[in-house]
Amino acid sequence: MKPPHASLCLLLLLPPLSAPAVAQDPAVAAARAHRGAHGPSILAELADLLALPCVAGDAEGIAASGDFIVRAFARRGVTLERVLVEGASPLIVGRLTSPGARRTLGVYVHYDGQPVDPPRWTFGPWTPTLVSAALEAGGTPRPFPGAGETVDPEWRIYARAAGDDKAPLIAWLAALDALRAARIPPRVDVLFLFDGEEEAGSPHLGQYLEVLGERLATVDVWLFCDGPVHQSRRPQLCFGVRGITGLELTVYGAARPLHSGHYGNFAPNAGERLAALLASMKDERGRVTVQGFYDSSTPPGEAERAALAALPDYDAALRAELALPAADEGAPSYFECLLRPSLNVRGLSAGNVGARARNVVPNVASASLDVRLVSGNDPGDMLDLLEAHVARQGYHLVREDPDPATLRAHGKVAKVLRQGGYVAARSSMDLPPVQEVIAGARRAAGDDLLLVPTLGGSLPLHLFTEGLGAPIVIVPIANHDDNQHAADENLRLANLWYGIDLFAALLTLETGG
Amino acid sequence: MKPPHASLCLLLLLPPLSAPAVAQDPAVAAARAHRGAHGPSILAELADLLALPCVAGDAEGIAASGDFIVRAFARRGVTLERVLVEGASPLIVGRLTSPGARRTLGVYVHYDGQPVDPPRWTFGPWTPTLVSAALEAGGTPRPFPGAGETVDPEWRIYARAAGDDKAPLIAWLAALDALRAARIPPRVDVLFLFDGEEEAGSPHLGQYLEVLGERLATVDVWLFCDGPVHQSRRPQLCFGVRGITGLELTVYGAARPLHSGHYGNFAPNAGERLAALLASMKDERGRVTVQGFYDSSTPPGEAERAALAALPDYDAALRAELALPAADEGAPSYFECLLRPSLNVRGLSAGNVGARARNVVPNVASASLDVRLVSGNDPGDMLDLLEAHVARQGYHLVREDPDPATLRAHGKVAKVLRQGGYVAARSSMDLPPVQEVIAGARRAAGDDLLLVPTLGGSLPLHLFTEGLGAPIVIVPIANHDDNQHAADENLRLANLWYGIDLFAALLTLETGG
Repeated sequence: MKPPHASLCLLLLLPPLSAPAVAQDPAVAAARAHRGAHGPSILAELADLLALPCVAGDAEGIAASGDFIVRAFARRGVTLERVLVEGASPLIVGRLTSPGARRTLGVYVHYDGQPVDPPRWTFGPWTPTLVSAALEAGGTPRPFPGAGETVDPEWRIYARAAGDDKAPLIAWLAALDALRAARIPPRVDVLFLFDGEEEAGSPHLGQYLEVLGERLATVDVWLFCDGPVHQSRRPQLCFGVRGITGLELTVYGAARPLHSGHYGNFAPNAGERLAALLASMKDERGRVTVQGFYDSSTPPGEAERAALAALPDYDAALRAELALPAADEGAPSYFECLLRPSLNVRGLSAGNVGARARNVVPNVASASLDVRLVSGNDPGDMLDLLEAHVARQGYHLVREDPDPATLRAHGKVAKVLRQGGYVAARSSMDLPPVQEVIAGARRAAGDDLLLVPTLGGSLPLHLFTEGLGAPIVIVPIANHDDNQHAADENLRLANLWYGIDLFAALLTLETGG
Repeated sequence: MKPPHASLCLLLLLPPLSAPAVAQDPAVAAARAHRGAHGPSILAELADLLALPCVAGDAEGIAASGDFIVRAFARRGVTLERVLVEGASPLIVGRLTSPGARRTLGVYVHYDGQPVDPPRWTFGPWTPTLVSAALEAGGTPRPFPGAGETVDPEWRIYARAAGDDKAPLIAWLAALDALRAARIPPRVDVLFLFDGEEEAGSPHLGQYLEVLGERLATVDVWLFCDGPVHQSRRPQLCFGVRGITGLELTVYGAARPLHSGHYGNFAPNAGERLAALLASMKDERGRVTVQGFYDSSTPPGEAERAALAALPDYDAALRAELALPAADEGAPSYFECLLRPSLNVRGLSAGNVGARARNVVPNVASASLDVRLVSGNDPGDMLDLLEAHVARQGYHLVREDPDPATLRAHGKVAKVLRQGGYVAARSSMDLPPVQEVIAGARRAAGDDLLLVPTLGGSLPLHLFTEGLGAPIVIVPIANHDDNQHAADENLRLANLWYGIDLFAALLTLETGG
């Protein structure tokens, strides 16, 4: 359906095959020239965006980030509009139309960030701070560079959402600038789709996709700009994600908190009950002991196993970096771990610790759990298994805080608040648009590029693979050691630079179609 | 050593034995008349004192509370002075001298309160609020009464330190006012000793007692005005306390918090490790499984067993009030529980729960534990047993946060910060000054008075029994359901009224000597 002269463009723009592909690729070269000349202004735009609070649910912060993004893309000639479903963060959507394009890339980025706990941040989550290296490696704050100053790619910028997930927005903007400066026209249409509540689980994304309906039907392949590159710092493309669900678990003791002297030994301690309950869910080796937990998983296929086998063995280096001891005999590899559903205690709370500890018998204790799902796992079924496990430990299950009569009648009471969630998703690497994206990424990344069948993290990609019937490719740019989801989130600038190169290459994709 | 005319006074003041002792006792009658006429102004003075923050370590708040107390006693003719050991909260000390007194009562009260967590408080910890009944019983806030208005003894005042331990200060002041108004002279000397850091474990009390030296040697019996009355609301005197110690326990996972998707299953979760470690310390029935934990306790003697047997069986009512199910067959009684050392998890913390939960693998998790000690238990020895238990679970023990090399070398690392603590203490009920105090308390409390060999709570009374060689009696006035040490601490006014009656009786004690 696209005019044929696009392929002519392709021939004119392609570098000679005999030369090193990456260096000679005009789009990638344009990206490098642009970031070489304008690094400080790219950083300034990133810092301006990161200074805007963007926790999903903070409507004011989300609106300010949205305004910024709409204005920034408008300056590059891309008109974005905000679509609003009641009670949701606005979805930002718009199309870059390129004459002669034969493919439409869908580009998903989320512009919200994880909740923050400001006292734990070295510089504050909304005070973007340039640091000479990772803080753990002794990095120290330094001024942002002025025009013309050289930018060290090992510098990092610290702020919530630096890596997850505002970096790709800035990289797309810079890639558009780079191509325009080099007078290289994009060769694909791009449908931008920016989610404002991914960190809250994208609760309205399905509804948004329905509202947008036909506008999305033209997309040939969806690119998800989120998540980190490989722990070896090598760029990667990924073709699937784990699903996710979770629950909040609260257990109770007496009707009120009690003095530990007057009631210690006599009244049950909710914190101790919670500890015993959580301890019952895994064995010594970390294997989940909840009955049926591993039963519904589809075992990895031949192709998946083969792709995994081709990946570099980075486990020993990863263990060293994370300060984990050498693996036990027979312990599963990192990628084997990702092929199983996981159960993770996100948080524990009862009473107080440290200077605020009081001599009290806590009567309420809570844990937050997330469950990562692989192919075959249904979110609701997995929560059912967990609930059944809690019940088997002698707990009476409730959905609201129990009244004294309920406590008295049952003794052990657990409140389980189930979260929603979604299934895992994966696309075949053999589909033509997916193959084209792989080829485009190789222009920016060269032979360093890794191809990973599935990521450990979760994105609601089933809405695209199952809902829209289009393949997906995850094109992460952030560093793996970016403290994503924790305090002191940061972005290594070399990763931002890679993102600009990558997106310049994808904007000038060689396509069939 | 005291002049003999005091016994003449005694004869003149004693009510006829044939009349109901309590109603006819002039001092107790004076107390009742005074609080009947001046209830609103007593409450106003209490509220003014409770409005002053008084967490140990908050030097400014402690100083303001101290100023208030010194001024209030000065208005009653009792000169208090502040003694200061460097780095400590000031100790407030002073003597009421009564012509003809043959005994000196030492009166210990602490004027600091437990740390606070303001968001958990209904009205805020430093906003004393009068409530028509306990909040759990549907009480609602009401204005403080004006002069002449009737005070309902079931009203409660909510504020930190309301019950623990500022109520006795106000009760002593009101008792002095009551006797003066009725022109009844006190018949004993009183050495007031007000501790400003009891809730921090009274770390300097021993040093203070040494500094005060001879001034304390005149005391015949120490009265500890702290802790709650019996759960049946019956007044009690207690002759011993448990000792206490504790520790802060922190376990570690990877070198940094990790994304639960990318690292769930692979990296160890510090919260899960902590849960398993705590779960290993007790069995299903709550019995401590730490090796040797019960071995050093001196079994209760005949006298102790006999006194316990004479106490009313309140367990079923207590279980109902605390919303605990009926006791299992063979479960120990409340008082049996207090005769054993206890291990209590004061708090647990890892990551975040609820709305602030993030999809992270926590790499640090902490618990705060307290250990209550009975006769025979040494604080340091008990902590040694706990440390040995942690080590037996495969942990390498450290005293500071481990560096990555330590984590890598040992895998499972636990930081244990040991707290100080002190041994249990108990005095014989047969000593003459103790017998006199019991008789005095009966004048205020009548036959309701319970005599309890030991309390579950802890006070540094070994400094008095072992250090000063004087007997001790605990004379609690607070309601047992005062949320002591937790949010929404409160004082039931009937308990304050009882305290005024009791202290008026003790100020006019019949003594030998």
